[in-house]
Amino acid sequence: MRIYFDHAASSPVRKQVIDFFKSENFIDLYNPSSVHFEGQKTRAKINDARDLISSLLECNEENIVFTSSGTESCNYVINHALHSEDIENIIYLPTEHSAVLDTIFSKSVKRLPCQMNENGEIDLLNLDSILASLSGKTLVCAMLINNETGIIQPIIDISNVCQKYGALLFSDMIQSIGKLNTVECLKFCDYASFAAHKIGGLPGTGIAYLKEQKKVYKDFFGGEQEFGRRAGTENVSGIIAFGIAMEACIDASVYESDNITHLYEHLTEGIRSISKEIIIPSIDGNKENSITTLIFPGLKSENLIIGMDMNNIAISAGAACSSGKIGGSHVLKSLNYDINQVNGAIRVSFGWNNTIDQVDYFFKVLNNLLKGMNFKF
Amino acid sequence: MRIYFDHAASSPVRKQVIDFFKSENFIDLYNPSSVHFEGQKTRAKINDARDLISSLLECNEENIVFTSSGTESCNYVINHALHSEDIENIIYLPTEHSAVLDTIFSKSVKRLPCQMNENGEIDLLNLDSILASLSGKTLVCAMLINNETGIIQPIIDISNVCQKYGALLFSDMIQSIGKLNTVECLKFCDYASFAAHKIGGLPGTGIAYLKEQKKVYKDFFGGEQEFGRRAGTENVSGIIAFGIAMEACIDASVYESDNITHLYEHLTEGIRSISKEIIIPSIDGNKENSITTLIFPGLKSENLIIGMDMNNIAISAGAACSSGKIGGSHVLKSLNYDINQVNGAIRVSFGWNNTIDQVDYFFKVLNNLLKGMNFKF
Repeated sequence: MRIYFDHAASSPVRKQVIDFFKSENFIDLYNPSSVHFEGQKTRAKINDARDLISSLLECNEENIVFTSSGTESCNYVINHALHSEDIENIIYLPTEHSAVLDTIFSKSVKRLPCQMNENGEIDLLNLDSILASLSGKTLVCAMLINNETGIIQPIIDISNVCQKYGALLFSDMIQSIGKLNTVECLKFCDYASFAAHKIGGLPGTGIAYLKEQKKVYKDFFGGEQEFGRRAGTENVSGIIAFGIAMEACIDASVYESDNITHLYEHLTEGIRSISKEIIIPSIDGNKENSITTLIFPGLKSENLIIGMDMNNIAISAGAACSSGKIGGSHVLKSLNYDINQVNGAIRVSFGWNNTIDQVDYFFKVLNNLLKGMNFKF
Repeated sequence: MRIYFDHAASSPVRKQVIDFFKSENFIDLYNPSSVHFEGQKTRAKINDARDLISSLLECNEENIVFTSSGTESCNYVINHALHSEDIENIIYLPTEHSAVLDTIFSKSVKRLPCQMNENGEIDLLNLDSILASLSGKTLVCAMLINNETGIIQPIIDISNVCQKYGALLFSDMIQSIGKLNTVECLKFCDYASFAAHKIGGLPGTGIAYLKEQKKVYKDFFGGEQEFGRRAGTENVSGIIAFGIAMEACIDASVYESDNITHLYEHLTEGIRSISKEIIIPSIDGNKENSITTLIFPGLKSENLIIGMDMNNIAISAGAACSSGKIGGSHVLKSLNYDINQVNGAIRVSFGWNNTIDQVDYFFKVLNNLLKGMNFKF
């Protein structure tokens, strides 16, 4: 029996999604742009998913652009802002996901990192003073829940500062569906990004949220799909599955959040009792319970991950997307952890199918691994 | 019982693909970039699909970049050529799909249409003389099978002319898997594009084929997926389904091509016997049997489509992707059909689940519709 503590990389496909693919509904997939019965039936399925999602996110259907991934969504909203709003400056947190950072750094705009406190929370005064110093239109990028540390950015406060200077706000909310006051925060953003596979939908579907419904920008050319914003035949089954997963996730969010809070409290207490040498980044900040990094100074995270994996526990060393990249986590580095600490970090992320017993088993395996690795307790 | 004659828009999901989604194999989808067992099992599934597809297309795995659609594939290869090969000129056929034309026209390069004969086949002498007149590197875009008329471009001959001038060749092969000598033609191309839903895979997955395996260009930034060419968590189930559908399509291609040849001969004979006034574009050219446009001068194609749809037959007026666009088919216009003819065009496209009896029923319905519309027989 495997224990899966890597929901921040991809959450296992939910039962409701699996049921859809086993049903007759799945078989009838055609080109939603076709005018005949089969096409219109397929179009109706996309419309239903968009209706459902916009109702769950409390926005309009036109705010939702379906994409192929969270990464594409982040790229798209940044491109959209640059082309449609004449953005000249981008202020970003150094702890943003690489889908945001690498996109920003591919553009020839003025790029300014915003300072953070030791937990990785934005320094609002610094944001204010940077905005006060700039001329031209500015885009501020601040993810709601960090994918490595779980730190929560105060989106509503950030939005207030942005509004003071007429800056636009993009929040990467890929880790946030069904958690916190995400839907409320969304109302304060000009742009946001989401991904289906983080909540038990299928890998390969994302959403770019655009508050501005009139301006049309596209990265791909061809058809007029997605309100003219994204050419290409839609990923019909992925979009339907996203709707199903989001509804299931939000329906179960109270129960799941409670469960995850118990798991998190059990995790942090257990870690404390194992060793005071283990560091939990951002633990004193406003942190989401489902995502936690644990730093074992002097150890190699890959040895911990492999050791856990051999004992049937799936964890990670940070963002899965970064696995092809060289060097440790840029998130932990920007929180001023030294290389010895960064290289000894693992991420534990909980989701809908985790239990207290699994955390206990994790402790048992961890204790054995640490002893074998001569970790200084 | 519905009759589906719109395989060129989207071919119904094949049984083998449906079976996969009903199996236990489908449930185990995680982030393929994760290093743990679940991630590596998912990675292995993508690798297996890429192995299978590269073996079916007789190329290397590194030639295959999975994308989210045929449209994205067309956009990507054109972007790749412009950025990696310093392309200064693009020669194109006016009958290319809008995913190619609109992408070309979004770029600031020298754009030159190539002349075609009355059937829409490329004028090789004109291609040669345009290439002879140009300085700087050139990309030639010529789709293998046209998505409206079914006309086949002589890719090997085109490649020979390109090679004479060091030009690169991109062939949109989205309508071509399992048909003709596509795999042989692919060997003569620098770039090609494919889409899963045209052969009974799922909408939402495409392939960009790149002969050059070393140069890396990306449109999206973030992770290092697809050999660093396309950031974003992969559409795992869509990719697996593409492999399954391509194998099923190629395995059945001899039988299906024979069947489609019979259907096509029956269709053209029947149409001739209904009325000499009905025009079949490209019929005297080198034409693929699965895709046929029928022109009913003076009639409105939407009335024919709706009439057919009400009689349980699904056909289209051309490319489904263009359904949001205004004006008749640019393909037929560029073949010099007048507006009266262009507006009266329908497309009939056959695939794996069509029979002679269905074509007979189509004739019966067509006869009734034409009488009701006072078509001049």
